[in-house]
Amino acid sequence: MNKGMLIVVSGPSGCGKGTILAEILKNDKFFYSISATTRNPRPGEVDGVNYHFLTKQKFEELIAGDGMLEYAAYCDNYYGTPKKPVEDMLNAGKHVILEIEVQGAMKIKEKCPDAVFVFILPPSLKELRRRLNKRGTESEEVIEKRLGEAAGEIKYAYKYDYALINGELSEAVDDLLSIIRAEELNTKNSENNINEVLENA
Amino acid sequence: MNKGMLIVVSGPSGCGKGTILAEILKNDKFFYSISATTRNPRPGEVDGVNYHFLTKQKFEELIAGDGMLEYAAYCDNYYGTPKKPVEDMLNAGKHVILEIEVQGAMKIKEKCPDAVFVFILPPSLKELRRRLNKRGTESEEVIEKRLGEAAGEIKYAYKYDYALINGELSEAVDDLLSIIRAEELNTKNSENNINEVLENA
Repeated sequence: MNKGMLIVVSGPSGCGKGTILAEILKNDKFFYSISATTRNPRPGEVDGVNYHFLTKQKFEELIAGDGMLEYAAYCDNYYGTPKKPVEDMLNAGKHVILEIEVQGAMKIKEKCPDAVFVFILPPSLKELRRRLNKRGTESEEVIEKRLGEAAGEIKYAYKYDYALINGELSEAVDDLLSIIRAEELNTKNSENNINEVLENA
Repeated sequence: MNKGMLIVVSGPSGCGKGTILAEILKNDKFFYSISATTRNPRPGEVDGVNYHFLTKQKFEELIAGDGMLEYAAYCDNYYGTPKKPVEDMLNAGKHVILEIEVQGAMKIKEKCPDAVFVFILPPSLKELRRRLNKRGTESEEVIEKRLGEAAGEIKYAYKYDYALINGELSEAVDDLLSIIRAEELNTKNSENNINEVLENA
């Protein structure tokens, strides 16, 4: 069995990455990596579903024991990606999806150069503004802030292996599946297959 | 408009690459590169369809003028890939498919490191033998020779970017299309797209 691949997905707020990933995750060959945090659960949030909610002591033990793929401190709390569930799932042959912002992705890139880095783009900043407005959950001021952040994040897209535009959802899903299939067929990941052909004479 | 990609396809005789490429070529965003040769046309062969049939003098002029992407001499005749039609089609945004044996592919790799190299594998050497037998056009001796050649060629699969197994035709076609789509989305080929998103504020 081939090992699974670590697939790192980023994209600005409103680009629709959550919707794309929800489609992909219907196939159980994918596993969604759940982040850990030391902040308190908000009402309705479930441990192990939204986050792994850890104590500060436990989080710092994981850091000290090289147990985090990446982590950051934000507003007096830690956020990060525990290494063990990712490695267990990769060893079980599953592709692990890691949805993460650009700074975290760049840290993963240093540690896991073999991971596949995918950036999801909105068709345009204009369309991103329209989508954020349509949500109706955020003030004009917050939307302007998100658009400024989006422009900054999109400049990192060049550092990813792939950049796909989420115009039509079904096309974006097909694009992401094509990327993953192509990576499976990449000779750096499919030596086993070539050997099998030769051995089965 | 993005430039097209050069897609180099190899695989042993009987692996079914011709059938896969015939499916792909139904889409006119692809262009099949026709080889040039100095050998005489066989009955039924058409200039510009099966080969570009050139005089020895013309072929040697092209070599001297750096007009061949690769060439080889075989049985007193030249065989090769004229550079100009390939470049013209790439500039027109078409993906150029180059079906070529492994030695020629390795020469292309030196000259065009950005090309995409795809190796098509039979499911097994056993299945390749079955397919060659089923054709019924070749003697047992020739089939044994082909199988020996196939095993030698398959060892080169590791030097390609991708290796796909042609078990079911439709799956192999989908795999090749996934590879090509992923390459289109690779950030090394899609800078234009990222810039467009940022410019369209």
